Amino acid sequence: MIGGQKASRVDGFDKVTGEAKYTGDLNLPGLLEAKVLRSPFPHARIESINTEKAAALSGVVAILTRDDLEDINPFYGNCLRDRPLVALDKVRFVGEPVAVVAAEDPLIAEEALSLIDVRYHELPCLGTVEDALAAGAPLVHESTAGTGEFHDIATVGAVMKPNVCHYEFYERGDVTRGFAQADQILEETFEFPMIYQYAMEPHTSVARVTDGGITLWSSSAHPFLVRSELAHMFGLPHAKVEVIVPYVGGAYGSKSYFKIEPLIVAMARKTAGRPVRLAQSVPEAMLTTRRHSAKVRIKTGFNRDGTLIARDAEVVMDTGAYADNGPRVAKRAISRMIGPYKLGDCKVEVSAVYTNTVPAGSMRSIGGPQTIWALESHMDTIAHGLGLDPLEFRMRNLLKRGEELKGGATPIDADLRQGTKAAADHVCWSQRPNQIGKGRGVAVGVSDSEAMPVSVALLRLLADGSVLLLAGTTEVGQGARTILSQIVARELDVPIESVIMRGTDTLATPFDRSTGASRSTTVMGSAVKLAALDLRKQLIDAAAEALGTNTTSITLRNGTASCGDPCLTYSEVVSRYFGMPGGELIGRGTMRPGQGLGPKLPLFWETGMGAAEISLDIETGAIQVDRYITVADVGKAINRVQAEGQDEGAAIQGLGHTLFESLQYDNGQPVNANLVDYRVPRFIDMPALFDSALIENEDGPGPYGAKGMGESGIVSIAPAIGNAIFQATGVRIRTLPLTPERIWRALNDAKRGM
Amino acid sequence: MIGGQKASRVDGFDKVTGEAKYTGDLNLPGLLEAKVLRSPFPHARIESINTEKAAALSGVVAILTRDDLEDINPFYGNCLRDRPLVALDKVRFVGEPVAVVAAEDPLIAEEALSLIDVRYHELPCLGTVEDALAAGAPLVHESTAGTGEFHDIATVGAVMKPNVCHYEFYERGDVTRGFAQADQILEETFEFPMIYQYAMEPHTSVARVTDGGITLWSSSAHPFLVRSELAHMFGLPHAKVEVIVPYVGGAYGSKSYFKIEPLIVAMARKTAGRPVRLAQSVPEAMLTTRRHSAKVRIKTGFNRDGTLIARDAEVVMDTGAYADNGPRVAKRAISRMIGPYKLGDCKVEVSAVYTNTVPAGSMRSIGGPQTIWALESHMDTIAHGLGLDPLEFRMRNLLKRGEELKGGATPIDADLRQGTKAAADHVCWSQRPNQIGKGRGVAVGVSDSEAMPVSVALLRLLADGSVLLLAGTTEVGQGARTILSQIVARELDVPIESVIMRGTDTLATPFDRSTGASRSTTVMGSAVKLAALDLRKQLIDAAAEALGTNTTSITLRNGTASCGDPCLTYSEVVSRYFGMPGGELIGRGTMRPGQGLGPKLPLFWETGMGAAEISLDIETGAIQVDRYITVADVGKAINRVQAEGQDEGAAIQGLGHTLFESLQYDNGQPVNANLVDYRVPRFIDMPALFDSALIENEDGPGPYGAKGMGESGIVSIAPAIGNAIFQATGVRIRTLPLTPERIWRALNDAKRGM
Repeated sequence: MIGGQKASRVDGFDKVTGEAKYTGDLNLPGLLEAKVLRSPFPHARIESINTEKAAALSGVVAILTRDDLEDINPFYGNCLRDRPLVALDKVRFVGEPVAVVAAEDPLIAEEALSLIDVRYHELPCLGTVEDALAAGAPLVHESTAGTGEFHDIATVGAVMKPNVCHYEFYERGDVTRGFAQADQILEETFEFPMIYQYAMEPHTSVARVTDGGITLWSSSAHPFLVRSELAHMFGLPHAKVEVIVPYVGGAYGSKSYFKIEPLIVAMARKTAGRPVRLAQSVPEAMLTTRRHSAKVRIKTGFNRDGTLIARDAEVVMDTGAYADNGPRVAKRAISRMIGPYKLGDCKVEVSAVYTNTVPAGSMRSIGGPQTIWALESHMDTIAHGLGLDPLEFRMRNLLKRGEELKGGATPIDADLRQGTKAAADHVCWSQRPNQIGKGRGVAVGVSDSEAMPVSVALLRLLADGSVLLLAGTTEVGQGARTILSQIVARELDVPIESVIMRGTDTLATPFDRSTGASRSTTVMGSAVKLAALDLRKQLIDAAAEALGTNTTSITLRNGTASCGDPCLTYSEVVSRYFGMPGGELIGRGTMRPGQGLGPKLPLFWETGMGAAEISLDIETGAIQVDRYITVADVGKAINRVQAEGQDEGAAIQGLGHTLFESLQYDNGQPVNANLVDYRVPRFIDMPALFDSALIENEDGPGPYGAKGMGESGIVSIAPAIGNAIFQATGVRIRTLPLTPERIWRALNDAKRGM
Repeated sequence: MIGGQKASRVDGFDKVTGEAKYTGDLNLPGLLEAKVLRSPFPHARIESINTEKAAALSGVVAILTRDDLEDINPFYGNCLRDRPLVALDKVRFVGEPVAVVAAEDPLIAEEALSLIDVRYHELPCLGTVEDALAAGAPLVHESTAGTGEFHDIATVGAVMKPNVCHYEFYERGDVTRGFAQADQILEETFEFPMIYQYAMEPHTSVARVTDGGITLWSSSAHPFLVRSELAHMFGLPHAKVEVIVPYVGGAYGSKSYFKIEPLIVAMARKTAGRPVRLAQSVPEAMLTTRRHSAKVRIKTGFNRDGTLIARDAEVVMDTGAYADNGPRVAKRAISRMIGPYKLGDCKVEVSAVYTNTVPAGSMRSIGGPQTIWALESHMDTIAHGLGLDPLEFRMRNLLKRGEELKGGATPIDADLRQGTKAAADHVCWSQRPNQIGKGRGVAVGVSDSEAMPVSVALLRLLADGSVLLLAGTTEVGQGARTILSQIVARELDVPIESVIMRGTDTLATPFDRSTGASRSTTVMGSAVKLAALDLRKQLIDAAAEALGTNTTSITLRNGTASCGDPCLTYSEVVSRYFGMPGGELIGRGTMRPGQGLGPKLPLFWETGMGAAEISLDIETGAIQVDRYITVADVGKAINRVQAEGQDEGAAIQGLGHTLFESLQYDNGQPVNANLVDYRVPRFIDMPALFDSALIENEDGPGPYGAKGMGESGIVSIAPAIGNAIFQATGVRIRTLPLTPERIWRALNDAKRGM
């Protein structure tokens, strides 16, 4: 038991009672409220901004526009610094911030927005990737488009198309030769919609700027990256930018990197030290970030016996008006298009394309659902075409542990057949359903989440035996504080109640790269474990000194150090060490590339298998998921309830893009960016039988053999359901979501032989 | 140069511009103001407390009385837990808190106080130590008096007198035999008044109590001890008690240990999570803590040639109504009564006696000015009686480096003659003044400040090269942040501007025993230096790895690591180490007893010599200090301007108790506890020529040979001036302060042969 694998959430009580504080709960004396004036046009030149009337409104304290940015670096971005904190010369999407008002009251701020007079000159809207890539299309970004450059991933290849924010290229072998040698070739094109991350808490920040520097409270998942970006923009040392993250009400990528933070800090520079809050509404949050939509062309050559020979794939992603995390999303798509199967020659191209829509960034498994939807549907089509059982076809081709998915990357580190078989068994794969409209489908997801191995942790054993855990992982609802506390409790052998971990404060908490990419248990968990081991060593040394014995005779158990009979509580050890009831021992743990977590990247392959059984009303297209199983290979579940909860949550989130969700644009105008029109799964939409199974081979690089699994469940549900529809109807639907209308049309088209 | 020995104060800009925030500047939403109902009687039983009317006043949120303490440990105290946070069965001094009101506004709280009906039954007042020690006297504390027990210093001896809070006894050799062998014996009795510490900022605290624990902002000099005491009282782990200390406007002992913190936290438990502030007025602060008054009987046997043979000394201190730091003050008096001179047999007894006056606690050089006033006056009387030059007499008898003042303690670690001679030379000792009323005096102070060697520091080198220094030393005006930053700057070879140290927050800052006892430069400075060395090692390792060389080839200079030509900034070293522009290196430094700062206590002897030249109007008793030199043996001045400023400040503070200050009581009623009637030195009272000289033999145990010196200047000024009066008039005045009236009376008495 790891500090009790059934340990209750350490944040459970706070959250159930409402004691848990989120950024929006923060109140400060003199707190001002900010509201944002947003562009109504997808693409327009700003001819003038007149704030005179708004500024004269009683209760308005300050207004921020492009005229206030002269003494700073107004551009930001985690991949490309292509985005100004408010629009400069032009606006590039509907919802782009043009001006910000800070007022005594949100209603005053709102009213002031209506008094700001902005004159726009409309420009042609590049509403789709097709518009954007068309020869001679106008440019979303005159300066950066087509350069393919961004700041922290090397670029491979280059194209001469307009509005390409980023281009990734991968090739091994010779696909032309491969296709020539194949018995058959299948080419399909799949589509994946724009998706909103839909965290319960819209992104919220409060900023205060004084001579002493910046203090920012934010519902950020990446506080340390926010710190460095703000330091860069506003010309401050990192030590003068304090980023504080209380509890966060869900993130799913929507709070990664920098969203509203640059804007609110710039606003707070104009309020003479008064703090300013920007609490976004959900519709505003939906105009802030989203998941990339994608069009995936996939062409595979294979032999009659089901051997895969060659693949040529092309992914075109709509990255919206600014790069955000687009380049990284593009990069991550590569390995998913190669796929976890034995395959010879392979070529993959991925473009992230600028359009006049809301910028796309991170979302749970960046680039994963889009590509795995395509690949696993495509694999199914191949199997059916060859008359092979799709499960059998997969089992035959799946890579084995130790085989390489991609040269240079970590070889496969999991038993993929075990998870796939578990999923299939759960829906009784071998018994083919014989009712009309019933079908079963299976899918396999293998991802590189790009978990970066950089985390630092401190552990302070205080003189009363309580333990302060300083780790920069943000508690976004995933249960990180519980997991990390369990690791400490186990390594120090103390009750989990004596371990206390609070939110991040960059002035107190050591560096962590980010919360995301399923990395916290593996990477921060390892740093925390190292810190605990470092602390254990000190405890043992101090206990040996106090008990007058050698260190090898000391045993640490249940909060005490003993050598046979003589026994001291940790509190007594610390007090003896310092000669007073004070002092503290500090354990330190550092994770960095190439140290401890394996020599290559990815640190682990994140695998999520799924199997579905569905019932279809073939008259109406109405679909019911009768059964769904999600299987995550977690290495080791440090907290079983949390791991299952997270895997199930991911699957249900995936059910959203599978059946319901799609952010719709009409020539650059968002159509359904609100809570009423954007449809997410409800309880009534849950599969009638819904389960998760955890594979635990203790083969992960994290503590106790754990590996990342927060993104496992989301990738396979769409193809599993799509494949079940195929099994039920023989019709392959290649566009998500699988709404009744789309299913009905597809069945009708098939009937009519289209 | 240590990060520039002339480095400007790192807090200078903030303080000059008013940007520096003190506890009283703190504002929080929903902040309530607390006012304290204080006892008007010095000693009385509380028969009833009726808060009904007060509670009904609009704007009153909660009232705290003895009825609210059932679920906690209401007693606190750093030596003896003899003090309830509000009065329980009886009050023991005028000003003792009886009830506390928290209201929306301070005026409402004030008005509510007037509506609380307390019925007292007066008890006999023990207004003086004589009253308290009289046989059959009633007891201030029925339960603890005479037990002599307190919690962290071993007690020596015991007496059967009433109201003895603490008794200290020291004996070596056989004083009876000693006196029998001496040529002459001189016995004198000296008196030292009660003194108020007079920090510019009266003690202020803000508390908030929620289910999550206690958050306390306080102008405390001992935040970590406050944390553990609150944890004990309120039954919480240390990790759930957050004590935050912003800038502090002077302390001088008045903010040591626990003053108003227990009371305000208990109050905050009743306000449903709303924070409460208690900002004391100066008159209230004067009813909160003070320095011990003392009566010192000193009897010395000596030979005609000036050899000291034996001493018997008795110190009786008025510790007021509660122990506070009295027992520790008593203990510290011992070595001062032995004195820094060759001496054979010696016996010293010190009692701290309970009376019905404001509790006495710490003040700059606890127990020092009282005893050194007596000893150095006494030494002068002996010299004059023997016809010896008082300087020559001292020079002959002063202990040499390596000789023991007290068995078991660290031997003398300074050249006492050097400092004494420097002081005397400065006032041209050898040229005896020949004007009427002119006189010169010299005095030597050698103290054990009880600097405890327990400090922990962390140093975080961030990825942009800025350095966060986490050290729990409170900036009380002494310049600690500057000194500690200088040490970091020097050890890491970076500009001091890149080092950032903020206030203490016990959840972020590692343990430090306390700010006081002249310990911060020596003890925390050593911890900080160790942390810097630990960080240097990591920097060198990381640089060697990055540059592909061995660690011995790496040089760190001016923020860069190099091996010959190839050169990386620290920022680059960190970024290469972590493979991204992030991560951080953390240095750790721990000081504890017996490690690094010498095997015995005291860690250092704190020495302060003084020499004065005065002019006396023998008709009126008016005294003018024409010249004063204070000499501190600082080992090494890490920042010369600050060291001189601190030494001069201490001397001027000592000028207060020498010429002006005395808290007066009349049968338990304070007479002058306010800013008008309590007289401190003004600029016009400064010596016409006033100087300080620093002795720097680099012989201290702290960084670069530094040792503590914050209390040096205060101890010798009174006896130096008293001795100058003696030289000028032949009259020995044995009671402070040396007001014109007292001098005039003494001269008149002498004239009349009394």
